[in-house]
Amino acid sequence: MDVLKTVAELRDWNRANGGNRPRVLVPTMGALHDGHLSLCDIARKKAGMTGTIVTTIFVNPTQFGPNEDLDAYPRPLEADLEKCRSHGVDAVFAPSDNSEIYASDASISISETSLSNHLCGASRPTHFSGVCTVVAKLFNLTQPDAAVFGEKDFQQLAIIRRLVRDLNLPVEIIAGTTVRESDGLAMSSRNAYLSPQARAQAPIIRQALGHAAATIQQGKFDESIGLVRKTIESAPLAKIDYIEIVDAETLQPISNLESGRPARIAAAVFFGKTRLIDNIGVEF
Amino acid sequence: MDVLKTVAELRDWNRANGGNRPRVLVPTMGALHDGHLSLCDIARKKAGMTGTIVTTIFVNPTQFGPNEDLDAYPRPLEADLEKCRSHGVDAVFAPSDNSEIYASDASISISETSLSNHLCGASRPTHFSGVCTVVAKLFNLTQPDAAVFGEKDFQQLAIIRRLVRDLNLPVEIIAGTTVRESDGLAMSSRNAYLSPQARAQAPIIRQALGHAAATIQQGKFDESIGLVRKTIESAPLAKIDYIEIVDAETLQPISNLESGRPARIAAAVFFGKTRLIDNIGVEF
Repeated sequence: MDVLKTVAELRDWNRANGGNRPRVLVPTMGALHDGHLSLCDIARKKAGMTGTIVTTIFVNPTQFGPNEDLDAYPRPLEADLEKCRSHGVDAVFAPSDNSEIYASDASISISETSLSNHLCGASRPTHFSGVCTVVAKLFNLTQPDAAVFGEKDFQQLAIIRRLVRDLNLPVEIIAGTTVRESDGLAMSSRNAYLSPQARAQAPIIRQALGHAAATIQQGKFDESIGLVRKTIESAPLAKIDYIEIVDAETLQPISNLESGRPARIAAAVFFGKTRLIDNIGVEF
Repeated sequence: MDVLKTVAELRDWNRANGGNRPRVLVPTMGALHDGHLSLCDIARKKAGMTGTIVTTIFVNPTQFGPNEDLDAYPRPLEADLEKCRSHGVDAVFAPSDNSEIYASDASISISETSLSNHLCGASRPTHFSGVCTVVAKLFNLTQPDAAVFGEKDFQQLAIIRRLVRDLNLPVEIIAGTTVRESDGLAMSSRNAYLSPQARAQAPIIRQALGHAAATIQQGKFDESIGLVRKTIESAPLAKIDYIEIVDAETLQPISNLESGRPARIAAAVFFGKTRLIDNIGVEF
């Protein structure tokens, strides 16, 4: 496995591996867990034996708000590289410094003005502009045929699909199912921040979403949000940021299920300063 | 020469011509004049005999302001194709409809927040976001190794270079010198709007810029702008939009020449509703 620390090294690698297609990208912020590694496995399926997997590890500053956890975000690079190695990744692009990615006078950014108005976009107003900008940059730098993103960040996945469509990026987007701990908690690098008490209570998010989906399937759409809210609020350390039921494609809030249009129930919940997100699909 | 009217046709063409590199793009809004055709000639030099030239003809709605000349903009497609044919263009991508380029619910855009604050960006606040977005899309659609832009739109050229740098687009940007009528007027598709009287007065822009550059070279920086202004205002039909002396790279206004840092004097002048731009380099 090649470890590339600079854009120049990445460009050399691209040239040397130009013919080994398809090239499949797994963009991450590191602190890799089994969720990320399942994306690498999906990438291998797509790449086959002749193709290559490139994983990027970059804690992107432009997607963090001023009071968020940019500095605290875990960066266990050596452990991450070992995990990539054992999951058949061909090259890791782990820029040694933010200046490899952003010029000090960078002045171009990408924004999304529809899908990002709700859910996490409402709580984190500059987040998705940072995500879109860095993903477009990483696509242009790594030149993949396909890229794999996890469904845990459901809004991000929808916005990346929109980015690809609206900028005509020649990259196929593949979704990876959320990987969960045995008690149902969605895997996240941020779970490491949780106190033992919070960790014990956090699976309530998934349970509440599961109840709500079942409630909607039973035709009781109007009761569902209240039920999620009540269930999550039963955990003493939980503080709800949002719970919304949205159209799975447009991410606009809906007030009823429409046949043939998948919906998504999405929640963000604080446990102390740690903000966790999860979501569940529902349709009929 | 292949004429491609849809994104699907362009994609097929890309596949069939994948190996004919370098591929050099000349993006235009059509109404081609000798300035555009000189860009095609530069493209051929770059492409050599094995490479290909792709010219795009698309009057991009997102770079026009609400009271600008989008509807009036000339669209002489057949004449344009003939000119491309006679200048060795291999393929013209001329989308048959705006919907080939923009989805009705498009929600992604690119913006630039430094170079676009002055000059045309001040008069046309949404213009360069439209330019950046469509150029990124056309790059992604046509997958060129290099692209040629004219120096007449000097601010556009600088912003495209910034777009390429900040989004890591793998495209080399080549500048084409402004082509002029025999009386010095910079060629522009918008010259066709001019009344005979305005057409007769319009060369004053170039003359004034030339005087100003000479004045600066003589060490009289502070007098130069006033001189341009006075000269242009001597033409009865001319109404100045802006005249500025800026750093050629950052496009920020300067108050003196600095050794080794090229500057640019840029002007936009209305003749009736027709807005003409021009610029001249100056350095020591």
